[in-house]
Amino acid sequence: YGKNTIKFLRLHREGKKHFVKEVEVCTHLRLTSAQEYLEGNNSLVIPTDTIKNIVLVLAKKNGIPTLEQFAIDICKHFMTTFCQVAYVKTYVQEVPWQRLHENGVPHVHSFICVPDGIRFCEAEQCRNGPLVVFAGIKDLKLMKTTQSGFEGFYKNEYTTLPERHDRILCGELFCKWSYGECKDFDFDCIWYTNKIRECILEAFAGPPDCGEYSPSYQKTVNSIQMLVLSKVSQVQVIEVILNNTFYNVVDMKNLGLTNDKEVLVPVEAPYGSCACTLGRKKFLEA
Amino acid sequence: YGKNTIKFLRLHREGKKHFVKEVEVCTHLRLTSAQEYLEGNNSLVIPTDTIKNIVLVLAKKNGIPTLEQFAIDICKHFMTTFCQVAYVKTYVQEVPWQRLHENGVPHVHSFICVPDGIRFCEAEQCRNGPLVVFAGIKDLKLMKTTQSGFEGFYKNEYTTLPERHDRILCGELFCKWSYGECKDFDFDCIWYTNKIRECILEAFAGPPDCGEYSPSYQKTVNSIQMLVLSKVSQVQVIEVILNNTFYNVVDMKNLGLTNDKEVLVPVEAPYGSCACTLGRKKFLEA
Amino acid sequence: YGKNTIKFLRLHREGKKHFVKEVEVCTHLRLTSAQEYLEGNNSLVIPTDTIKNIVLVLAKKNGIPTLEQFAIDICKHFMTTFCQVAYVKTYVQEVPWQRLHENGVPHVHSFICVPDGIRFCEAEQCRNGPLVVFAGIKDLKLMKTTQSGFEGFYKNEYTTLPERHDRILCGELFCKWSYGECKDFDFDCIWYTNKIRECILEAFAGPPDCGEYSPSYQKTVNSIQMLVLSKVSQVQVIEVILNNTFYNVVDMKNLGLTNDKEVLVPVEAPYGSCACTLGRKKFLEA
Amino acid sequence: YGKNTIKFLRLHREGKKHFVKEVEVCTHLRLTSAQEYLEGNNSLVIPTDTIKNIVLVLAKKNGIPTLEQFAIDICKHFMTTFCQVAYVKTYVQEVPWQRLHENGVPHVHSFICVPDGIRFCEAEQCRNGPLVVFAGIKDLKLMKTTQSGFEGFYKNEYTTLPERHDRILCGELFCKWSYGECKDFDFDCIWYTNKIRECILEAFAGPPDCGEYSPSYQKTVNSIQMLVLSKVSQVQVIEVILNNTFYNVVDMKNLGLTNDKEVLVPVEAPYGSCACTLGRKKFLEA
Repeated sequence: YGKNTIKFLRLHREGKKHFVKEVEVCTHLRLTSAQEYLEGNNSLVIPTDTIKNIVLVLAKKNGIPTLEQFAIDICKHFMTTFCQVAYVKTYVQEVPWQRLHENGVPHVHSFICVPDGIRFCEAEQCRNGPLVVFAGIKDLKLMKTTQSGFEGFYKNEYTTLPERHDRILCGELFCKWSYGECKDFDFDCIWYTNKIRECILEAFAGPPDCGEYSPSYQKTVNSIQMLVLSKVSQVQVIEVILNNTFYNVVDMKNLGLTNDKEVLVPVEAPYGSCACTLGRKKFLEA
Repeated sequence: YGKNTIKFLRLHREGKKHFVKEVEVCTHLRLTSAQEYLEGNNSLVIPTDTIKNIVLVLAKKNGIPTLEQFAIDICKHFMTTFCQVAYVKTYVQEVPWQRLHENGVPHVHSFICVPDGIRFCEAEQCRNGPLVVFAGIKDLKLMKTTQSGFEGFYKNEYTTLPERHDRILCGELFCKWSYGECKDFDFDCIWYTNKIRECILEAFAGPPDCGEYSPSYQKTVNSIQMLVLSKVSQVQVIEVILNNTFYNVVDMKNLGLTNDKEVLVPVEAPYGSCACTLGRKKFLEA
Repeated sequence: YGKNTIKFLRLHREGKKHFVKEVEVCTHLRLTSAQEYLEGNNSLVIPTDTIKNIVLVLAKKNGIPTLEQFAIDICKHFMTTFCQVAYVKTYVQEVPWQRLHENGVPHVHSFICVPDGIRFCEAEQCRNGPLVVFAGIKDLKLMKTTQSGFEGFYKNEYTTLPERHDRILCGELFCKWSYGECKDFDFDCIWYTNKIRECILEAFAGPPDCGEYSPSYQKTVNSIQMLVLSKVSQVQVIEVILNNTFYNVVDMKNLGLTNDKEVLVPVEAPYGSCACTLGRKKFLEA
Repeated sequence: YGKNTIKFLRLHREGKKHFVKEVEVCTHLRLTSAQEYLEGNNSLVIPTDTIKNIVLVLAKKNGIPTLEQFAIDICKHFMTTFCQVAYVKTYVQEVPWQRLHENGVPHVHSFICVPDGIRFCEAEQCRNGPLVVFAGIKDLKLMKTTQSGFEGFYKNEYTTLPERHDRILCGELFCKWSYGECKDFDFDCIWYTNKIRECILEAFAGPPDCGEYSPSYQKTVNSIQMLVLSKVSQVQVIEVILNNTFYNVVDMKNLGLTNDKEVLVPVEAPYGSCACTLGRKKFLEA
């Protein structure tokens, strides 16, 4: 049980300059007891209202140095404060506020919401187990208008899809990686120095002057994983899900026109999905 | 990988009387190969477009006798047709069309959408493993305006929640149960004869003339599970998630009024969540 | 300016039997002044927080006898209390809670949310003008699987749609009617006695044993309007919008099958829309 | 009647460099006839399927030079081709694809979706009337963490809101302006040269080093309108709606802490709304 979507804004001021971190937190607990389910005995139950208060107080006291550190702080607090907690998991996602700029000058206290991918993280711990930290980015919508195809696939009597060597590749990416057992990482430093987001975009798009041919969603997913694992040594395992939207070339023959992939219609349902989890030395697909 | 939200309507006619089943199907596969990820070799990949075709063809050929049987048919088809499939999972959910009635007379071909809980099911199979079937109901929004409280809970310096013995209990239920290894069940017969939905409502609400006191969300979740397990012998394990919305009594003292729980405001975020999985003989909470 | 989505629950008790009315209210005002926009002088501005308080206090004091009466009460309150209000409009929509029944017995305090059409109303008034009341129903999803076609339409070189005399008609209805200048109506009595909702369903579906042929969405919209106007004398004008979802018969020729309108796929975007406003004696289409 | 959410992608290639314009179009017509409503006579009805075809063909033939020009082309086509059309309105909104950059180098064919405000436009014409063009931006979420207050407002017995001279101002902006009767404007030139979006952001935020005090949402709305009207001579009238989210400072006294506006919780419902339409020489508020 737990509390979901605890939303709040943490405002930090340095003189006239303001820094905002608006987050949405979900914290779930499993207790060592079962009596609250079986007997309605609540004596060990920490109310979800108290969970919310603890999250807000930790934000007030520690601030949100990084999303990951904040999730770790919450997990540690529950494990050390309450001996009836058998397991704790905390998920934190960020509202993508960006500082406004006017003619290149950053504004001291004004922000705009730019949802081109949402950063999130997760920390979890079982009593007597390690504290494990995950981070990720979701809702990242990307498109390439060429250098994508799908050929040589398995065919039988149910196959109607034609082979294509030049199609649009468009999808929404979900990437989540594990930093393994929690260490004294500076998570924002890993994020910014290693440019994980840039890695993902680069693996998706290929070189800016010509791109790189994608023979399938599967291969693109794998390319993203390989690049992140090779560039960011702290990442242990990376899961990528690519939900793709097909674009159908509109047949205009009946309308007396030849449509050379100029007008395409997105097909939003059904949509394909391709997920893979890749770790160091071992390979798992799902 | 797989195809999500394959939406279609299966229309069945018996003379002038029409029967509709509109569903949304998600089918996911795991292949025995990895070469499509590593090398971009698609020779074993069944396109998601073919997955969609197979789902539609099975609906055309077999109809949708029950949601569960349809999910089983799909899984069996993939396992027997494609030796490269290591695992298959199919999820089916129903659009809640109900036959229209005029002055109590059922209409032969007109329907209304009544989304008071959505039926769904899931079937999954690993190669050489059993075919396991799940069913459930989700998006079921219930409320009781008394006979609910929360007292005697754990308190510390972060506790601000007062004890309450008369509050509103309102939430959205998700229930999913396992029928275990697939047998020749008549799933609609189990659903309708055992009145699973009625069980859930009854366990939530208590007797119609007085209700039954709920000392916590946890106990209500457990009551639902116990009643379903006791009434429906085919159910092996049942998971229930109750996402609850608190209703705050509006403080009207500053407005010169005494509000005796007459005007309440829903708090939609954050919301509490309580999940539990209960099986026969063994007890697991999550 | 105003306050939107003021959500609250009004609970009324008669002994052990509870009655709930959960609503969402939007109240908008126009003031006689412009100084708050031009000069930042707020001296005549009624804060939206005060608007919210007034709505809650009126709910506490008067209850919600009917949605319409509640909207009227709010408008009257603003017009009589604040001389700086030039115009007031209040919209009220209902959360569709229905009393639970167990084996036909109504439960004293348990409810289920059944969103098969949402009732709403609107009241508005200009200073020195009449108070006008509207009511309606929205999000009403209906389908008929035959007795619908579309033939004899205008054709030119851009026409690719075939004529069809047996198609599925499926759509979401929005109906809004005016009761004209506010009188001492018992609005729930009009609603229930005249069975407005049943009128709409009946006009859509036709007789239960055979239905009634619809030659177009336009004609169906008109039939609904004509029936409501003929059955409910208090309705002055009625607007109906029908947003329709096409169902395409899946072509299975390539898959070696003949699909006799048994498997159909909904096309959710783009969707057609047909709106018409019909009054007594005068006819307006939009 | 008409067709909504006609979604398509228009791809334009110049050598290896690709340009994408993905849009969503809604086109509505009113005919001179009423016989389709009254008699089910469809002989003058242009099917919504034909409307869709026309929109796609125009995109194929003319491309989408600007959103506004495309909306104008569609309106003109319907007015000149079909004498039974009494009125036509076309709405076009853009999917916010932006070209990807790698280390500052623009990619030839890869794009990312960045929804920090959505551009849209509208064109409408009555037979024998002028073609009028509107443009706008919506879903623009902005926040300033200081330089905002609300004081000196009207008070009575329902007032519980305290005066505040330092609050967070956060909201979603909808701006729509009229270019008046259609002329040979280069609409993208007006958009980019006059930096309308930048105007809006600047009027909202004030100077980057100190901001500008906002005494109310109303005044901020007016500032945006005044700046756009003064900077962009082609704009005749501008409507601005600001839907605001309040942020409540969490009271932590019971938790033994002083919260100096460091932790704030957003209140998403109810939300305030402030709308105003400002033209040259005349002033209208709504």
